[in-house]
Formats: sequence, structure tokens, C-alpha cells
Amino acid sequence: MIKVGIVGGTGYTGVELLRLLAQHPEAQVEVITSRSEEGVAVADMYPNLRGHYDLCFSVPDVAQLAACDVVFFATPHGVAHSLAGEILENGGRVIDLSADFRIRDPELWAQWYGQDHGAPDLLNEAVYGLPEVNRETIRSTRLLAVPGCYPTAVQLAAIPLLEAGLIRPEGIIADCKSGVSGAGRGAKVGSLLCETSESMMAYSVAGHRHLPEICQGLSDAAGQAVDLTFVPHLTPMIRGIHATVYSELKSQDAGDLQALFEQRYANEPFVDVMPAGSHPATRSVRGVNMCRLSVHRPGNGNRVVVLSVIDNLVKGASGQAIQNMNLMFDLEETTGLNQVGLMP
Amino acid sequence: MIKVGIVGGTGYTGVELLRLLAQHPEAQVEVITSRSEEGVAVADMYPNLRGHYDLCFSVPDVAQLAACDVVFFATPHGVAHSLAGEILENGGRVIDLSADFRIRDPELWAQWYGQDHGAPDLLNEAVYGLPEVNRETIRSTRLLAVPGCYPTAVQLAAIPLLEAGLIRPEGIIADCKSGVSGAGRGAKVGSLLCETSESMMAYSVAGHRHLPEICQGLSDAAGQAVDLTFVPHLTPMIRGIHATVYSELKSQDAGDLQALFEQRYANEPFVDVMPAGSHPATRSVRGVNMCRLSVHRPGNGNRVVVLSVIDNLVKGASGQAIQNMNLMFDLEETTGLNQVGLMP
Amino acid sequence: MIKVGIVGGTGYTGVELLRLLAQHPEAQVEVITSRSEEGVAVADMYPNLRGHYDLCFSVPDVAQLAACDVVFFATPHGVAHSLAGEILENGGRVIDLSADFRIRDPELWAQWYGQDHGAPDLLNEAVYGLPEVNRETIRSTRLLAVPGCYPTAVQLAAIPLLEAGLIRPEGIIADCKSGVSGAGRGAKVGSLLCETSESMMAYSVAGHRHLPEICQGLSDAAGQAVDLTFVPHLTPMIRGIHATVYSELKSQDAGDLQALFEQRYANEPFVDVMPAGSHPATRSVRGVNMCRLSVHRPGNGNRVVVLSVIDNLVKGASGQAIQNMNLMFDLEETTGLNQVGLMP
Amino acid sequence: MIKVGIVGGTGYTGVELLRLLAQHPEAQVEVITSRSEEGVAVADMYPNLRGHYDLCFSVPDVAQLAACDVVFFATPHGVAHSLAGEILENGGRVIDLSADFRIRDPELWAQWYGQDHGAPDLLNEAVYGLPEVNRETIRSTRLLAVPGCYPTAVQLAAIPLLEAGLIRPEGIIADCKSGVSGAGRGAKVGSLLCETSESMMAYSVAGHRHLPEICQGLSDAAGQAVDLTFVPHLTPMIRGIHATVYSELKSQDAGDLQALFEQRYANEPFVDVMPAGSHPATRSVRGVNMCRLSVHRPGNGNRVVVLSVIDNLVKGASGQAIQNMNLMFDLEETTGLNQVGLMP
Repeated sequence: MIKVGIVGGTGYTGVELLRLLAQHPEAQVEVITSRSEEGVAVADMYPNLRGHYDLCFSVPDVAQLAACDVVFFATPHGVAHSLAGEILENGGRVIDLSADFRIRDPELWAQWYGQDHGAPDLLNEAVYGLPEVNRETIRSTRLLAVPGCYPTAVQLAAIPLLEAGLIRPEGIIADCKSGVSGAGRGAKVGSLLCETSESMMAYSVAGHRHLPEICQGLSDAAGQAVDLTFVPHLTPMIRGIHATVYSELKSQDAGDLQALFEQRYANEPFVDVMPAGSHPATRSVRGVNMCRLSVHRPGNGNRVVVLSVIDNLVKGASGQAIQNMNLMFDLEETTGLNQVGLMP
Repeated sequence: MIKVGIVGGTGYTGVELLRLLAQHPEAQVEVITSRSEEGVAVADMYPNLRGHYDLCFSVPDVAQLAACDVVFFATPHGVAHSLAGEILENGGRVIDLSADFRIRDPELWAQWYGQDHGAPDLLNEAVYGLPEVNRETIRSTRLLAVPGCYPTAVQLAAIPLLEAGLIRPEGIIADCKSGVSGAGRGAKVGSLLCETSESMMAYSVAGHRHLPEICQGLSDAAGQAVDLTFVPHLTPMIRGIHATVYSELKSQDAGDLQALFEQRYANEPFVDVMPAGSHPATRSVRGVNMCRLSVHRPGNGNRVVVLSVIDNLVKGASGQAIQNMNLMFDLEETTGLNQVGLMP
Repeated sequence: MIKVGIVGGTGYTGVELLRLLAQHPEAQVEVITSRSEEGVAVADMYPNLRGHYDLCFSVPDVAQLAACDVVFFATPHGVAHSLAGEILENGGRVIDLSADFRIRDPELWAQWYGQDHGAPDLLNEAVYGLPEVNRETIRSTRLLAVPGCYPTAVQLAAIPLLEAGLIRPEGIIADCKSGVSGAGRGAKVGSLLCETSESMMAYSVAGHRHLPEICQGLSDAAGQAVDLTFVPHLTPMIRGIHATVYSELKSQDAGDLQALFEQRYANEPFVDVMPAGSHPATRSVRGVNMCRLSVHRPGNGNRVVVLSVIDNLVKGASGQAIQNMNLMFDLEETTGLNQVGLMP
Repeated sequence: MIKVGIVGGTGYTGVELLRLLAQHPEAQVEVITSRSEEGVAVADMYPNLRGHYDLCFSVPDVAQLAACDVVFFATPHGVAHSLAGEILENGGRVIDLSADFRIRDPELWAQWYGQDHGAPDLLNEAVYGLPEVNRETIRSTRLLAVPGCYPTAVQLAAIPLLEAGLIRPEGIIADCKSGVSGAGRGAKVGSLLCETSESMMAYSVAGHRHLPEICQGLSDAAGQAVDLTFVPHLTPMIRGIHATVYSELKSQDAGDLQALFEQRYANEPFVDVMPAGSHPATRSVRGVNMCRLSVHRPGNGNRVVVLSVIDNLVKGASGQAIQNMNLMFDLEETTGLNQVGLMP
């Protein structure tokens, strides 16, 4: 059994880790930390966990965490910078769900996150945990950065086209729609039901922190700098991201895009290319570690439209974190992740 | 492996059976019928099932169904009446999610369902599948009637008090709130998002078909006729039933009600008595086979209020059906039913 | 034109006052206060008001408020206690939407609100603003207490039966369902979309602050003490209260209840008794100052069920406040309150 | 008083016409037709109209309709083709909310709507009712085509840029999100709460009927053919359209886009250009005849992003229809359309 520690378990990615790990046959949560909820039983805070956990939140203790085989960070950015190094030094492994180790360039990170990077020395051993791209590197790392939710949905949508060199690297547009759980469990007026239900709005059009992360991944796939316009929208639902990714074919003679996607993801357990003409709905992935995609070329013109849906808390966070853990610990990649989505 | 057939699999209880059985280690769905969707892959109709099922809907065929170890009916009332007998004669077992075999008195059934009972001869071998009451009888039956959603929530709330003889058998009130999935997947104006979202309304105050079923169960528990006022309400959410059950203590000296409930359900894997003072939320049981309860005595007066929540499609239908299957096939009762609720 | 001041205008009852007063032909908002939002334009905070108001929030100033013809308090309890007296002394009139002057007994108030009553001397001139009961007294008061949202829905449902002496004064049950806006615009985890959407739960079963207010009103109507069980539920929608009120007839020979309700409210512009057998939906009163009712006697037994719906922010707060203002200023009672509900 | 007839009043645009006309001081609904609901009171079907209308649905009668000053068609496409001509011949005026007269080219219409155009002779007198573009022509027409919901939101977003010649006419993208009321009140599985709530999905990526209508309008504004990619998404809310319109500047030296929009719409009562950096929410226009816009140029690059929100049933249908009626009857354009949006 893998002994698991979780730092910062009171938020939505924390409880989602607990939900998924409760059903994981090879992992056991040993410790979960929260300064504010010290001593509270996780099942008191999250009654869906009653009967599954006896654990209480505790104050973070490095020795205790380092005694775990792996420590998940489900914390705001900045926290893992200071703690991850200590755990690694003590022989632990770290899977960080925050943004702390996603961007390779510490200057760029500092620019978007408004503070200095707290652990630049660790950056060159941090691996970006998108298994559909980095599977082999993931297997051998001890410091894994779980991709952001928007970046996961957008990269899986655009990478096949970029890798194949079929689309222009400039002018790509990612129009993304996220459920409100993406804003976290913080007590903010902007996340109240009365403020978000029955309404749709864009936000951060001038620049969202996931933009440099997405550009890094797309540029890697393209082998050249990619220019992206990224507009996120707050959608009146709890879970789900729908990315609608627009790009322009370099040539009318682009071949069979459906086949391209099917081949690219033929062996991927957590990417499902839907039949031509499909429109994936976010609810089809609710609660499961899956990205559903469909590729369209309206009017057979030079515009490609890829539709990509994930559950932001699963393939966009906690599920992907466990997928990475499975790889890092030589387990079958799908272990504990074979749930069926809740529909309706 | 138990070979499973499903009659009428296109509705919400049908897809929920498929979702749960996909995760059941001892059962395998062999056939699923739908006249209207013959030949359609279940995964095309319900994309959440992609990767879990290759099965297509087929026209009901008695021989094929009788070759299964058990046949679930997820059909409108009246259908199981005519088909169940044939399957039983051919050596199969039947688990009926419809109302066809829930009420012991065929006259009463006819009065509420507006048609003659189609299989009165089978009624005396039909067992009402509320394991918390009938566990032993369930184990040996070949014809099981799965309780309705409201009846499950209300009976589990009231039975401890009635069995203990603590409350008056008249004047019981069940004020129930159900998500819209309780109305099924039929194309009805009254179930449109635009008609049900952002609104709350009662319905069927003059009399709902679940009333005689609930009264039958409560009267059994009380050992005398029980008089119930039952008002269901349509609630703007997909899943969930919240029953608020009001009754009057016979005496001020009623003892420790919390202890009464905890003892009554101490060995029940799918009933969770919450700590005193709790208010269970339907979301805490979303997607799982669980009834969460709390018992209150406001102002220490003579009124008892029991709050009871279930997922209408799981403990109120398909999950309970599988719980019964487990009992009928001598499996551990919880087999395949240990999911954790989706929260948020 | 009536010069209007509003104290505490940033919450949902505040913005609702602004919405309704923008359409009132005889009133003009002169000042709106908020310490935290001083200098912010109301239309910046609430974009639906763009084009309707140039006003900015200002710090409360007694002189400025007293110069208004009437001051609405849309504040947490306790605030009006200290400020109302000063305004009255300066010749102003006060319409208080908080609970500060609703309960006649200051001891009872202190017991439920956890602090001493701050203005007991004003209690004997405060008038409880339920026009369907107190219309004439309202016309001549200078200190008006707007009823709470639950109390409005429950009292209008039960008063006809109590006034007629048809029901037992004990054993009345009010099972109430409220939209989340009833919890206000405060940044609380419990009001987040992710915590309240797709879920139903009861709260405060042990005792809610509206209980003594409702009991006071029902006891007045009955001419004797009334015993009530009141259970509020948090419902996944923005606006609306649905009260389901259960009571027991003293005698089987109760006469025509439908006629009783129709006669009781025949001249009431803001109470709509629906045809026999109806089930009012909260959406039918969304955004409008109306209470829709229907009365049922299931199975012609001794139990009466009254269904009552209001918009908690309109007839349950700001609309009723304006209805009272109209009476206090000798305007037609319906002035500015003839909107049609938004449906769907 | 303008005597108004409504053909096809049972759908959502029909009831919305009734809601808005109830508050219009210069118009009176004389007749409303529905074959299926003949004899039913509109207030029985739509309880929000109780107290505002005594009218019943009647079977369409040309003489009766032609006796009205104006007839609104709130019908599926094809119906107005056959009836409008008769009404015009009898001296009436027609405002058609369907797609029947929006597209000037009957061949193009036939291609997208799958049937021959039924009234090509009327096309050259039909006026496209977008007052922000065609105000003067609207004043004098007797046959008005109300723009579609998506076309209204998209055109108002893109027209200022195209008229000014600032953007490339190819490569424009309109990523649109619509509430479920856009799908109408028909009893379709795809519009059920259980199918649409808590989910986001694109539809009709291969081609939506509003595409040719939008292209016609944008090409008019550009003075040349415009190439558009239009992807609509079904959003889990009742009302509202959010259009996110992407285009490319011809030159980096594009001037002050904020000023361009403010000037273009300076005298428009129903277009509100928000301050620079704003993100309009659909709820800010709920129930009102308003389009709120904001214009962004992320990173000061060559990409322009315009955010545009309307209520699909008001500025996207019935409100805009009344705005056009006001113009056609020489009333103040804003008559009866000054409501304040419902928020929250």
C-alpha cells in the first residue's frame, strides 16, 4: 500500500483526492493537514466521506509527511515551494496540484503569480504531469506538477494538430467554460449561488494565469512559439470544463482529422475521441478521470474546431494527480480510476 | 458471474443500473431491451458508459431474458405484470423496479394505478425489497419488488419510531422534496429545465401513488393502520429526495430517540444515522446507495421531526435493486455498492 | 415625490428596493448608505441598475437621512435599534426590513437574537407591516416593521383558518423551502453555488429566529396561543419561498375552505387564491409582490394543507416594504408594484 | 391604443410578449391564437399573468387578426409565410419573430430551412428589425422581421468594428452560449432539466440556421462578404445569451476601441457599452431589453474580443419586437421597455 499524505485537504481538490483514494486499492491516506481545521474529522466536514475515513485534519508536520510514500499538495500557490524541498530531502515524493512547478521559467512564473518563485532549484527536476505527453518522464520523477484544469482541456484538444504541424501556431483561440468549483471553496461573494447561478460571464480576458502554462505546452507540441487567445467563462454549474478550441489549417489538404485524433489517442485510457460529428457534454465526464473530445471542420473550410470536456476536479486536478501517482509507483495507470460518470 | 437482463433500459433507472453494474464484480449485463431504441448502442445513448459497455438495446425476448440469472424491470407500471410470470416459469428471477408488485392488495393497486392488476397470482410470492425490514425473506424470493423512492426515504425515517410504539399512528406527515429525475426521462413540458429550474412547487396533494405503498409499510411497522399525509414537492435539482417526517410522541417520556435510531440501524450498511443536531443534505448521498437520517425533537416537545435523504435513483431505485440482488444471490450485501458520493 | 433614504443598501434587499423604487412614480431615492462601499456607484456594484441610478453609496449621516421623508433599513438586526430613534426625533419615518421591531416583547426578542433589545421604548409605536392584517394601523404609523419572509408566507397561509376558528391551535406545522438569497449576500461557504446547488437540506430544526415572529402573528389571529413546528429548508434556487402549512380541523364539518380563502382575500391586491386543486410554483411570483395560495383537504379528511408561495425578496421583504410605504403616504397601495413575474 | 394580435402565443416568446405588453401603456392585446390550446385562459397556462389578462387562446382567424393594428407571429418558421400576406392585404401590419423574413435571399433560406420559401414576393418589403442599424426603414415598414437571438448579440458586438473597417472580414469567430429557453417550450428530451442542468455542450458546430442571418448582417456592415465561424453552446440556465466574438485587427494602429464603441452606441437606448475592462454577465440583462457590451484587446495585440450579453427572450426576441413596434407606430422607442433587470 502506498502511504499517502495530503497537504491542504479542506478545498475541493482535497476532498476529491479523498473520494478517489477511498476507492483506490493500492493507496491509503495516512495524514491530511489543515491548520484551520486541526482536529476536525474529515467526515464531519464532508459527510459524503462518512464510513470511508476515520481521519482528522492535522497541522502539517514535515517528519510525518516525509514518512509517507507520496505527498499531494492541494494548496494555494506558494505553499509547495517551501515545503516540497523538505519532503524531497527526507526521501518523499511530491505531487503538487498547485501551480508552483508547472511553469519552467521562474521569471515567467513570478510575473504571473505576483511573487518570486520560492524554489527555482527544484524546477529542473519537476515534471509536468500530462501523461498523454510526458508518460515516461513521469514514471521516474519524484516531483510532479499536476497540470491546471484549463491547460489539460486545451492541450489535449490542440496537441494532435500542433504535433502534426497542421495548424498555424498563431491565432489559436481557446474559449473555455468552467463550472464554479474551479473558483475553489473560498468564501467569496463572486462564488455565491445567487451571484453565479442563472448567469454566464467571461472573466480575466486581459490575462489569466493559465495562459502561460497553456502556451508552454502548446509551444512544446508545435516546436515553436504558439500565440493563443484564452478567454475563460464562469458557467452556472458545479463541475466541468468545456474548451472550444479554434485554429486555422495551414493547408486545405489537411487529411483525415478524425483519424489523426483517434490515432493520437488510441492507447490513452483517459482520452476518448468521440465519433465524427459528436458534441461532448461535460456531464458525460462528471466525477471521472476522462477527457472527451470531438474534432470538427465546419463547411470543410480552413477552420478546425475541437471540443474538449473534462471534470475540472478529476482529469483537471485530483484524478490526474492519481493517474500520475499510478505511473510514479509502477501501478497500472488506471488503478482506482475506473468509475463511471454520474448521468443524469 | 450473475448474468443480468434489463427490460426497459432507456430511462434513468435503467442507465443507473448500467452505471452501478459496470462496477459490480459479480454481475454482468447480458441483455438490455428497448423496443424504441433497438440496435442502438447503450454507450451512444449514454456517453458516460463509453468504454464500459459494448451492448446494444434489443427487442425483449423471453427466452433470452429467462436465460439470465436475474432480470431487472426498469419499466413503467403494468409491463412487469405480463412479463415477469413468463420469466419465473422459465426459471429466472425477477427484480422489478416498477410499482407492479409493491402493494399486496390488488384492489388497492388497481384503484391507484387506474387499471386491473395483471398478475394477482404472483402477489403472494412477491417480496417487498426493503432489506432493513425484510432481509431474510428477500434472500429466498424469486420475485422482488423494489420499493419506490419516496417510500424508501419515508419508511426508513418513521419505522424506528413506529416499531418502538413511541408515536401516534395517526397524524403523521411526510413532506417530501424530490429532484426532477424522479419524473423520469420522458419528454414532458413539466420536466423541462425552463419549467422546473429556479422554482419549487408541490404536486399531487390530493393523492400520490406512493401513498398506499408508504401506508402499507408504516402500518406493518406499527402493527396497526397508520394515517399519513404525504405531500411531494418538485425541487430544482437532478437527483435527491429529502423527506421531512413529522409525528407526535404518545408520551413526553420517550427516551433517547438518538439512541433508538442508532440501535435500530447499527448493523445496516446503507443507513447512516447522523449525530444529534445534524441536517443531512441530499448531496451527501449523490450517486450512492445510502440513506442518511437525523432525528430531532424541537424544544423537547411532543413533536418528532426526522430528516431523511437518499439519492432517488440509487437507494430509491437502482442501488437498492442491486442491494436486493446481492441478498438474493448470497453475495456480501455491499458488493459493488461502496462508491463515495460526489461532493461538490 | 417621496424622498427616500436607504440604510445598508449593498445586500439583496437593498438592491431589490432600488430595483422596485426605480419603477415607482412617486418616490425618489435620495441617499443610500454603506460604510464599506462609500463612494462606489450603485450601478457599478449592481450593473442591472446602470441607466437607472447615478447614486453612490455614502456613509450614514443622520441629518441627511432625517431630511428624507422615509428611511428604509436594509440592515442586519441591531442597526435600526440605534438609528431609528434619531430619525424619528428629527421628524422622519422609518420602514425597517430587519427583525428589530417585529416582536412586541423585548425579552423574547433578546432571547432569540442573543443581545438586549436596543430600543424597547419604540416598541409600542412600531407597527407590524402585514397589510392584510394591519392595514389601518399601518397608515398612521411612523415606525414600521416589515415582516420576515417566512413569516409572511406562513401567516398568509394560516390566518384565514385561525381567524375562522376552524383549526386546532396546536400541532400546526410549517414546512418551508427557501431560495438561497434568503441567506443574504454575505461571503459564506454555506451559500456558495458549489455547496447549495443540486442539494436540499433542512436547517435550524432546533429553532429558527422567525419562529417567535410567526407564533406572535398566528396567536393574534387565533385569539389564543398557537403551537407551531417550523422547519426551514435551503432550496437550490435564487429566489422564492414555498410554505407548506399543515393543520388539523377541529371538526369534519368545516365548510367550504376554498370559499373561505377567496372571501378572506377578495380585496387584497397582493394575495392570489388559486383555483381549487392548484399547486402554486414559486416562479409564478418571481420578481413580484404577490403571495399565491391554494388550500387542500386531502381525502376530505381532517387535515388541511395550505400551499403558499412568495418571492422572499419582494413580498417577503422589499416589495412589502414599498407596499407599506404606499399606505403610510396615502398612495394607492399598488403604486409601483404592478410588475408581471418573469416566467420562464 | 394599439390593438395587438399574437399568433402562436403558447411558447416562451409568446408569453414574454404578453408579459411585456401588459406593462405597455399604448398597446392592448386583443387576440392571441393557439390551435392546441383553444379556449384556455392564458393566465391558466401562465400563472404569472393572473390578474393581468382575461384573454383566452383562440383559433387563428384572419379577419380577426387583420382587424388588429399589428400582428406578432411567435410561431415556428413557415407559419408566417402563409398568413402574413393575408394580414397585410387586409391592411394590417406584421411583426414576425420567426425566421421567415430575416434572410433576403429565398434560395439561401430554403437551403437552411429545408423547405421552399413560402412568400418570396414579400421579401423586398420585409425590413430586418435591428433598430441600431435600420431604424429609419423600420419606421415605415408594414412587414418586420425580428432578428434572431444569436444574430442580435453577435451583430451588435461586431458591427462597430466592421463599419469602421478595422477588422479582417475573414476569420471572425462567434462563440455563443445560450440558456435553454432558446430551445423553446417543446417537450423534447434534450431540453429536460435532467439533460441540460449541470452540463455544458456545443451543438450544431457543422452549421446552425442563424449562421446565414448573421453573415448577411455582418456583410452589410462590412460592405463585403464576411466569413464567420459560429459555435453555439447550450448553457445550464433559463435565459441569456453570451456572445464572445473574436476578430483580428487589420493594423496594430487601431485607435481607441472603447471610444469607437461608445460613440457608435451613444444614442442607443438599448445598447450599453460598459467601462473598459468590464465583463458583462447575462444576469445583468435578465428580463430587460438591453444588450451589454465590452470590448477587449488582450495584451494590446491584434486580436479583439467583444463580449455581448442579451436576454434571448427580450432583446433577442419579444422585447426587440416591441421596440420595433414602437418605431413603426411613432411612439417613443423605449415605451413600455424601461424595466430593471432582476438581480439576483
